[in-house]
Amino acid sequence: MSIAVYPGSFDPVTYGHIDIIERSAKVFDKLIIAVLVNSAKKPMFTTQEKVDMIRKVTSHLDNVEVMSFSGLLVDFAKQQGASVSVRGLRAVTDFEYEIQIAQTNARLDKDLDTMFFTTSIEYSYVSSTIVKEIASYHGDVSEMVPPYVQECLEKKFKS
Amino acid sequence: MSIAVYPGSFDPVTYGHIDIIERSAKVFDKLIIAVLVNSAKKPMFTTQEKVDMIRKVTSHLDNVEVMSFSGLLVDFAKQQGASVSVRGLRAVTDFEYEIQIAQTNARLDKDLDTMFFTTSIEYSYVSSTIVKEIASYHGDVSEMVPPYVQECLEKKFKS
Amino acid sequence: MSIAVYPGSFDPVTYGHIDIIERSAKVFDKLIIAVLVNSAKKPMFTTQEKVDMIRKVTSHLDNVEVMSFSGLLVDFAKQQGASVSVRGLRAVTDFEYEIQIAQTNARLDKDLDTMFFTTSIEYSYVSSTIVKEIASYHGDVSEMVPPYVQECLEKKFKS
Amino acid sequence: MSIAVYPGSFDPVTYGHIDIIERSAKVFDKLIIAVLVNSAKKPMFTTQEKVDMIRKVTSHLDNVEVMSFSGLLVDFAKQQGASVSVRGLRAVTDFEYEIQIAQTNARLDKDLDTMFFTTSIEYSYVSSTIVKEIASYHGDVSEMVPPYVQECLEKKFKS
Amino acid sequence: MSIAVYPGSFDPVTYGHIDIIERSAKVFDKLIIAVLVNSAKKPMFTTQEKVDMIRKVTSHLDNVEVMSFSGLLVDFAKQQGASVSVRGLRAVTDFEYEIQIAQTNARLDKDLDTMFFTTSIEYSYVSSTIVKEIASYHGDVSEMVPPYVQECLEKKFKS
Amino acid sequence: MSIAVYPGSFDPVTYGHIDIIERSAKVFDKLIIAVLVNSAKKPMFTTQEKVDMIRKVTSHLDNVEVMSFSGLLVDFAKQQGASVSVRGLRAVTDFEYEIQIAQTNARLDKDLDTMFFTTSIEYSYVSSTIVKEIASYHGDVSEMVPPYVQECLEKKFKS
Repeated sequence: MSIAVYPGSFDPVTYGHIDIIERSAKVFDKLIIAVLVNSAKKPMFTTQEKVDMIRKVTSHLDNVEVMSFSGLLVDFAKQQGASVSVRGLRAVTDFEYEIQIAQTNARLDKDLDTMFFTTSIEYSYVSSTIVKEIASYHGDVSEMVPPYVQECLEKKFKS
Repeated sequence: MSIAVYPGSFDPVTYGHIDIIERSAKVFDKLIIAVLVNSAKKPMFTTQEKVDMIRKVTSHLDNVEVMSFSGLLVDFAKQQGASVSVRGLRAVTDFEYEIQIAQTNARLDKDLDTMFFTTSIEYSYVSSTIVKEIASYHGDVSEMVPPYVQECLEKKFKS
Repeated sequence: MSIAVYPGSFDPVTYGHIDIIERSAKVFDKLIIAVLVNSAKKPMFTTQEKVDMIRKVTSHLDNVEVMSFSGLLVDFAKQQGASVSVRGLRAVTDFEYEIQIAQTNARLDKDLDTMFFTTSIEYSYVSSTIVKEIASYHGDVSEMVPPYVQECLEKKFKS
Repeated sequence: MSIAVYPGSFDPVTYGHIDIIERSAKVFDKLIIAVLVNSAKKPMFTTQEKVDMIRKVTSHLDNVEVMSFSGLLVDFAKQQGASVSVRGLRAVTDFEYEIQIAQTNARLDKDLDTMFFTTSIEYSYVSSTIVKEIASYHGDVSEMVPPYVQECLEKKFKS
Repeated sequence: MSIAVYPGSFDPVTYGHIDIIERSAKVFDKLIIAVLVNSAKKPMFTTQEKVDMIRKVTSHLDNVEVMSFSGLLVDFAKQQGASVSVRGLRAVTDFEYEIQIAQTNARLDKDLDTMFFTTSIEYSYVSSTIVKEIASYHGDVSEMVPPYVQECLEKKFKS
Repeated sequence: MSIAVYPGSFDPVTYGHIDIIERSAKVFDKLIIAVLVNSAKKPMFTTQEKVDMIRKVTSHLDNVEVMSFSGLLVDFAKQQGASVSVRGLRAVTDFEYEIQIAQTNARLDKDLDTMFFTTSIEYSYVSSTIVKEIASYHGDVSEMVPPYVQECLEKKFKS
C-alpha cells in the first residue's frame, strides 16, 4: 500500500492546498495531511483549528487522514509508514526552497522520497499569507478558500 | 493499479534519467518509459537504439516497460491506461518549461496528471546534451552514463 | 495622444496575445500591433496571413491598428509616433529576455519606454509554439486560439 | 483621463522609485503615489515624513499627487478613479511576488489592471533596505537617494 | 600579494562554507574570513564562538585568517588591504541577492571587486538555517558540519 | 603564479567581455582569453578575426594572452597550466547554464575551478547576439563594442 504525507502549515487551508490534496488522493492509496506544529512562527489559527478546518473541507475523500506533528518530517513519515512526501509548487522561489528541503530529507532518510505537483493555474496566485492579508481588510476571499474557512477567518477578524 | 509514463528524448539515457526511473518504479505499480519520436529534431541515436539502451540499463526493474510514441502524450497515456506523467526537475529553466507542458496537458486531458521528482544532487549537472558534447571530444562520461551507453557513444564517435 | 506599439511574431496570434491587446487598448489612446518580419526565423504563417488573422480577431477594438515592420523597433516606433512599447510577461525566462530587450531599446532611443502586463492566469500556459505543436497532431487548441485562427491552423496541417 | 496609482512603502523614496515616477508621469494623465500605511511592519520614517519626502523630490512633476492609504489597494484605486496600478521590477524574485499581487488584485477588482516598468539599469541595485543599511554605518548614499532624503537619513542616524 | 575577504554570518560554519574557504585559499595569497557582527539579527552563537569554530575547522590552511567586523564590508576590506570579496552561490535566489550586494559594494568602493564560487554539488543543499533546524530536533547533521561544530550544536540544544 | 582562462565565443567581443577581462587581469597573474572553435555553430566572424579583435582591444593589458582552442576546456586549461576558469554572469538563465558547466568541469578535472564575476551594471544588457542584431539594421552599437569592433561589424553588413 502506497502511503504519502502532505506536510505544511495550512494557516489556513486554501483551495490551492485542496487541489493538491485531491490530486494526491487519486495517486496514493492513503494520504496523511500533516499539520506542522511550529512554536517559532506564530500562526493565526491553533493547530486544533487547522486540523478541524482541513477535516471539514476534505471529508469527501475517503483515503485522507489529518494529523499534526512536530519535529522532523522524516521521523513522522517513518512512524506512519509513508514513503513519499507530496508538495505543491507554484513559483520559482517555491521551487528552490522545496528542492533544498527535498534534498535535505533525502539525506536524512533514503526511504522518504519527495514528489511535486504544480498548482493548477486557477489557484497559482493563492497563498495563506495573501488570504489572511485580504481577510484582515474584510476583502473577498471566496475564490481562494472554502466557505467554512471563510467563516473562521471572519470570526478571527471580527474581534 | 497505478500506471505512470515517463516521457522523454533519452538521446541517450543518463544516470540522471535512471535515478528518476528507479524512484518512480517504487511509487507506481507500473512505469512506462515513453521514448518520443520527434521528426523535427535530429537525434544522435535512432529510436530503436534508444529503446534498446534503456531496456538494457533498466532490466533489473520488473515493473518497467520501454516503448516509443509519436503524437501527443495525452493520447499515448490514455491508450496505455496511465493516469500520471512523471518528470525530473533539475533547474529553474527546466521548471518553467515543465510547468507550461504540465498545464497544457492538464487542459488537453483532465485524467492525466503530472508529478515531478527533483534529480538527486549527484546527477543534477548531467544532461544528454552535455554527455554528447563531452563524448564527442573523447572526454570521460563514466560518471554520467552506464557502461553500455558509454560503449554506444564511443561507437558513434569512432566513425 | 498616447500611442503604444505591441511588437511580436504572432505566429499565430493566441488568446494570450489578445488578452494583452484588449488590456493595452484600454490604457492607450491608440495601439499599433507590429508584426515583426524576421527573415532569419522561418514562420509557419506569412506576414500577410498573420496580419489578416490579427485584424480579424481584433476587429471589435476601435483604437487598434495592425501593421508589419522589419528593422529595429525603435525606428518603427519613432516613425509611428509611439512612446511606449507593450509586452506580455508569462514567466521568469520571458522576464529576463524582455528586460534585456527593454534596456537595449532604452539605450537606442530614450523616447521609447517599455511597459509590461503579466498574462492573465488562464492564458499563462499558452504560447504560439505549443499551439503549433498540438495542432500538428490534430489536438484540441480551441481554448488557446480563436475559431478563425483554429481554421487557419487546420488548413496548414491538412496539406 | 487615464489615472494610475503607484503604491509602495517608500521607506524612504530612492532614485529607483523616482525613475519609475518620472516615466509613469509621462504615460498617464495623472499619477497618484500611494504610501501604504502598514501597522505590522515597523518603518523607519513616519507616514507623514514619507509623504513629505516624496512631495519634495517630485515637486517638478505637475501631474503627480502624493497620498497615503491603508486597507486594500483595489479599494483605494476605485475611490480615486484609477484604472492602472504601476510597479517597478528589478529582479526575478520581485517579479514572482509582483505577479502574485497583480493576479490577486485582478481577481479582487477587474477594473484595476497592473503595468510594470523595469527599473533603469543605473538604479537596478538600489533598494530602500540597502539605503538604510548603508546610511546606518554613515556610508555614502548620494548615488541612491536625492540630497533631501540623504539629510533625513542623516538626522535619523545621528540620534 | 592578492588578499581576499570571505564575509558572512557563519552561524554556524558548515561544510558548504569550508568548501568555499578551501577553494578560495588556493586562488588567493591570503584569505580573511570575516564574521559579520550584526546586532539586528539574533544569532545562535556569539561572535567569539563563531570565530573559534571557524579557526578550529580551518586550522589546516596556512593562508587563512579569521576576524570579526561590524559596519560596511568595503571599509573593512580597505583596512585589510583586500581587493576581492569572495561569495558562494547555491541558488537563483542567492544569486539575485548577491548580485545586488556586489553592485552596491562596487558603487561604494571601486577597488573592491566580488568573485563567486558555486557551491560544490554535494553541499548545495546545506545552509546554517537548515543545520540549526535539524539539530534542534536532534537530527543527524554529520554530513553538513564538521564534528567540532556538531558538538557545539549539541551543547546549545541540550540546555 | 596564478593563471586563469576566460573561455567564450566572442562573436564579437563586447564591452561586457572587456569589463570581465580587465577585472580578471587585476586578480590573476596571467589571463588567457580562450576563443572556442565550435564547428557546429556558425559564427559571424572567423576564429582568426575574433582573436585579432580581442588582441586589438586588450593591447593595454600586459598579462593578457589571446588563444583559440577546440575540444574540452579542462584539457586546454591543463595544457596551459591554468587552475581557474573565469566567467561573467548577467542573469538567472546565464547562472543556471554556467553552474551546470562549472559542475561538469569540476567532475572532469578537480584541478580546474570556476570563478564568476557579475557583469558591471552598465553592460548587463549587452550580448554579442544583440550587438549583431542591431548592427545588421545599421543601428548604433557604439555603447556596446569598441570602435574597432564596430568597424568590423560595419564591414560584415556592408557586403
